[in-house]
Amino acid sequence: MLSFTCDYNEGAHPAILQALMETNLEQEPGYGDDRFSGEARERIRAAAGCPAADVFLLVGGTQTNATVIDAMLRGYEGVVAPETGHVAVHEAGAIEFGGHKVLTVPSHAGKMDAGELRAFLERFHGDEARDHMVRPGMVYLSWPTEYGTLYTKQELTDIKAVCTAYRLPLFLDGARLGYGLASPAADLDLPDIARLADVFYIGGTKVGALCGEAVVFPKGDAPAHFFTTVKQHGALLAKGRLPGVQFATLFKDDLYLEISRNAIDRAMELKALFEAKGYPLAIDSPTNQQFPILTEARMAQLRPHVAFEVWERLPDGRAVTRFATSWATTPQQIAALAALL
Amino acid sequence: MLSFTCDYNEGAHPAILQALMETNLEQEPGYGDDRFSGEARERIRAAAGCPAADVFLLVGGTQTNATVIDAMLRGYEGVVAPETGHVAVHEAGAIEFGGHKVLTVPSHAGKMDAGELRAFLERFHGDEARDHMVRPGMVYLSWPTEYGTLYTKQELTDIKAVCTAYRLPLFLDGARLGYGLASPAADLDLPDIARLADVFYIGGTKVGALCGEAVVFPKGDAPAHFFTTVKQHGALLAKGRLPGVQFATLFKDDLYLEISRNAIDRAMELKALFEAKGYPLAIDSPTNQQFPILTEARMAQLRPHVAFEVWERLPDGRAVTRFATSWATTPQQIAALAALL
Amino acid sequence: MLSFTCDYNEGAHPAILQALMETNLEQEPGYGDDRFSGEARERIRAAAGCPAADVFLLVGGTQTNATVIDAMLRGYEGVVAPETGHVAVHEAGAIEFGGHKVLTVPSHAGKMDAGELRAFLERFHGDEARDHMVRPGMVYLSWPTEYGTLYTKQELTDIKAVCTAYRLPLFLDGARLGYGLASPAADLDLPDIARLADVFYIGGTKVGALCGEAVVFPKGDAPAHFFTTVKQHGALLAKGRLPGVQFATLFKDDLYLEISRNAIDRAMELKALFEAKGYPLAIDSPTNQQFPILTEARMAQLRPHVAFEVWERLPDGRAVTRFATSWATTPQQIAALAALL
Amino acid sequence: MLSFTCDYNEGAHPAILQALMETNLEQEPGYGDDRFSGEARERIRAAAGCPAADVFLLVGGTQTNATVIDAMLRGYEGVVAPETGHVAVHEAGAIEFGGHKVLTVPSHAGKMDAGELRAFLERFHGDEARDHMVRPGMVYLSWPTEYGTLYTKQELTDIKAVCTAYRLPLFLDGARLGYGLASPAADLDLPDIARLADVFYIGGTKVGALCGEAVVFPKGDAPAHFFTTVKQHGALLAKGRLPGVQFATLFKDDLYLEISRNAIDRAMELKALFEAKGYPLAIDSPTNQQFPILTEARMAQLRPHVAFEVWERLPDGRAVTRFATSWATTPQQIAALAALL
Repeated sequence: MLSFTCDYNEGAHPAILQALMETNLEQEPGYGDDRFSGEARERIRAAAGCPAADVFLLVGGTQTNATVIDAMLRGYEGVVAPETGHVAVHEAGAIEFGGHKVLTVPSHAGKMDAGELRAFLERFHGDEARDHMVRPGMVYLSWPTEYGTLYTKQELTDIKAVCTAYRLPLFLDGARLGYGLASPAADLDLPDIARLADVFYIGGTKVGALCGEAVVFPKGDAPAHFFTTVKQHGALLAKGRLPGVQFATLFKDDLYLEISRNAIDRAMELKALFEAKGYPLAIDSPTNQQFPILTEARMAQLRPHVAFEVWERLPDGRAVTRFATSWATTPQQIAALAALL
Repeated sequence: MLSFTCDYNEGAHPAILQALMETNLEQEPGYGDDRFSGEARERIRAAAGCPAADVFLLVGGTQTNATVIDAMLRGYEGVVAPETGHVAVHEAGAIEFGGHKVLTVPSHAGKMDAGELRAFLERFHGDEARDHMVRPGMVYLSWPTEYGTLYTKQELTDIKAVCTAYRLPLFLDGARLGYGLASPAADLDLPDIARLADVFYIGGTKVGALCGEAVVFPKGDAPAHFFTTVKQHGALLAKGRLPGVQFATLFKDDLYLEISRNAIDRAMELKALFEAKGYPLAIDSPTNQQFPILTEARMAQLRPHVAFEVWERLPDGRAVTRFATSWATTPQQIAALAALL
Repeated sequence: MLSFTCDYNEGAHPAILQALMETNLEQEPGYGDDRFSGEARERIRAAAGCPAADVFLLVGGTQTNATVIDAMLRGYEGVVAPETGHVAVHEAGAIEFGGHKVLTVPSHAGKMDAGELRAFLERFHGDEARDHMVRPGMVYLSWPTEYGTLYTKQELTDIKAVCTAYRLPLFLDGARLGYGLASPAADLDLPDIARLADVFYIGGTKVGALCGEAVVFPKGDAPAHFFTTVKQHGALLAKGRLPGVQFATLFKDDLYLEISRNAIDRAMELKALFEAKGYPLAIDSPTNQQFPILTEARMAQLRPHVAFEVWERLPDGRAVTRFATSWATTPQQIAALAALL
Repeated sequence: MLSFTCDYNEGAHPAILQALMETNLEQEPGYGDDRFSGEARERIRAAAGCPAADVFLLVGGTQTNATVIDAMLRGYEGVVAPETGHVAVHEAGAIEFGGHKVLTVPSHAGKMDAGELRAFLERFHGDEARDHMVRPGMVYLSWPTEYGTLYTKQELTDIKAVCTAYRLPLFLDGARLGYGLASPAADLDLPDIARLADVFYIGGTKVGALCGEAVVFPKGDAPAHFFTTVKQHGALLAKGRLPGVQFATLFKDDLYLEISRNAIDRAMELKALFEAKGYPLAIDSPTNQQFPILTEARMAQLRPHVAFEVWERLPDGRAVTRFATSWATTPQQIAALAALL
């Protein structure tokens, strides 16, 4: 059966499996001291234009968000996120497990607004009553967002200015970073991200790897003993070569961007398909997640043949659904869906 | 250069890579709902002789220990472990991060003693002052231990009897379980483990997999919503197929035991080699870790050619070293070391 | 200067100081095993009509909320509260420090709605995606609320029915319980509270004591080793006699209700006063907190003579203010304020 | 019945109750902004010779230890304490609840040794394996210790030098500080403590107050937003006047030292009494806790008339017992005990 439920339905890009095969019996130290992890770090620094960056390869998204946030906050601080942000909703309490509240600002199709962020932060200044509240300690956003949308360079610049004014680091969750960078709607590139964010991560799990996220501190100012914090938070792999080989492969010859482009091409076909067939799109997403609104009858008809996610039930009985493409989605799969619609 | 530093110097057993290749583009759901994880769970239930078991596939050892312990303890409880237990020493505070103290009993070459455990637990009964202390909530041991030693069936039975008397679950850390089961010194098998432990895990990372540990609740009584707890603790993989394919492979046709036997065969050769060359062994280990005592001169001579761990410096200038074999160690590597000695 | 900023501007009711004096040199054990704490527990059981109740005397409100919530939740659970609930806003992250998210439902002048609560909880049933979210583990509300309002007996009964349907305990924060019970608007009494809540606390700090909150588990089903949890959470006093003497005094001859009535009488005078002078009340509060809307000019005029809290700035330049009375407020103080207005 | 079980068997010193009475109806703000807390802070700064100090008044010992330690450590750090230290044994897991391991060094009648501390810390330097362990982040000791013993000025100076060498703050738990300062064996005073410790607290609960501990950061370098951390950890009193009035009283006219001297005088009489009667003392304690070794027969004879603690059972059937004096112990009580012996 055809599946568009998410961008991690398949294994890894073949080049990754190939590299795992070829290096399999080389003896290398554990915990990220292997030569593959070293290569991965170097290539990421080069691709992001930040030669002094600290780069760490962690297991997956939840672990990465929880680890970075806990490492950068003091105990009395919380992380500010859009109310639809992944850390605000879908991390199973991993942020709170580290003792931190997620403080929310309004979400506009997944994005926070710099002005609203400023207003939120401003309230903590010169107001003693706020000493009884969790203080904002960093700002979190995802790019692309959980709704497939992208902040423009200007929007990120404005948010960064607010962060700077309030001395808060900006953390960019790039679980689907490739699908943002490869989007025609993106007006920034990886070095821009590295310049605007104080810390960000490059998603591997959803962009061609079996697992792994690369955390980047562009200025080389990772929190002290971050390695130990990573281990404490369950985000360290003994065989550091596993993410090492994968990211070394993804960042060789622009593979990361190239395979991301496939997802975007397929998603734009999907978008055109839904529009052509008269299905309204709940969100105008320029990335690999598309959100057509389907009737119950249409969903019932599709279900035996294609898997997708119901995102939200509408009062009129219809539903916002999610169809995701990935590095692995083929034109054939889009054609098969077209035939079904 | 030759390396005996640990049992995770290589990638994965070739059969695993082969299986990853073959299944790579099959679309399967995430988070453990894939068919490979289902197969892995079934095969593990069969191998352990506990058809009703709950089985979960987690990322790595630290995450697994932290998750299981936190899921099974109440907030005011701690875990009892030998003072050399992995959770007592080398988890970077992951247990305490979950709010729990590690309560220690003496270690005898890595093992706790049932009588000493009973004496420790007994002190908490009928003594009000203990209400100001962390209460024992479960018992943790590793099999094999961090020193390569093995509890006998009788020893485990005695410890289990103490646990039952004090109504504490027994948690067996099997990060190197295969290397215990394959040891000629083992007088118990996997079904015995499943009968004696309330929860245990089957190590993958150190026994042929790229990553992954299989947590087994033999009686099918996993804590409620354990899935959510696993995610919260950073031990869940989005691509559950990664550990799924690996454990499905390891538990097909007894591969897990078979590759473990290679490690033991090589370790026994190593042991014989050190003994033949006149190097005393600090611990009489029947598993894949061997602990020869070397002089500084000998270590200096070996270092350019072979990597190993210094375990402990002795007052006389010599050192207890650790040489570990694995599923991947070859007779050629042993021969090369023999030539160096 | 006159102060109406809160209900803890003074020390303790004179009868409490008297009792502390009279018992001062009696030697009694610590940590709640003193005879005064015993008396307090017995009198509270009698007053609440729950002879089998477990009663614990804790230090203050934040500690009490954090301790009760953490003791009753599992690690993967959160507490459901109105979005204006004290635990959702003003506990400095004490709930998150224990690892738990505060899940919010809409607030209507401080109160949750049974129907909205049911709708919120319903969403967690039969939806696998919810396994990635913090699960509701208990329901929290305050009586009176942070806005001075009171749930009716019917409203609490409806909420309790929802809790029962979803098997969640109901926790009632009674930091100002006396001021609710003494309100003419209250249609329930302490035994009703004890029947409807699974756990609640009787506020001492804001109702005549120097410190102390009495936690009541009406059915006698306090979590195991709750004493140890209380200590672990910083809510235990070595000199348990301090809250013991205070609650024994407050629950002798109905003193708790009697002194609460004074606060309500004064608050109703305050309410009448504001209404008579033409100041609109932002909330129709039947308890000891009143929320008149004042112009900036009026506030500027009052400030040199009387202290009060600014609750919320309105877009038109006016402000919602809070004037609180207490057991200690005198008719003279109301008269003085009247003269100023 | 006579009781020597602990130093918190009575209420408060009469001067404290008197002050609470006299100030009872003065309206003052909450949370430490009252004038009494201000006076207390000023007097403590003066008594400790550190005019720039930050002083905070917290509820009790467990809360204070947990709050200070958690505020000063990063998540990956633990606190180093003697293995008999209060935080290592008797805080019900409050330190671990904050996510931190207690790292222990040997105890010599309650005291750590500077050389052993240095050796312990040294092991973390230049050893990569240590990155998998909890790192030392501060050093904790109590003065007097849990065994009534006192570090000399030289011993504290040596420990401080080790802390400085390893850039770790030194935290001195002064739950019984007065009983140390008033001991004839003490060769240092409060300004010495303030000079040697980076943070310490002055115990109130055990030295004449109903509750309360005064945390002092002598150099005025309290962690940012320490107030919020105190609230988050359940160590803040809404009626800050309660510890305020008490510490303002204790630090007026040297009352704190004066009443401590009574405890020491009585303890020395106790010590002389036991020695005269031929009871060996398990520890040579110069402070208010004495540890006579009694036979079972003698304990059985005393029990109907006098309460005391059994500290440790000896193999020969005898027991180390603890008899504590306090500010409230009278010569009559000593005489009564003498008559019983």
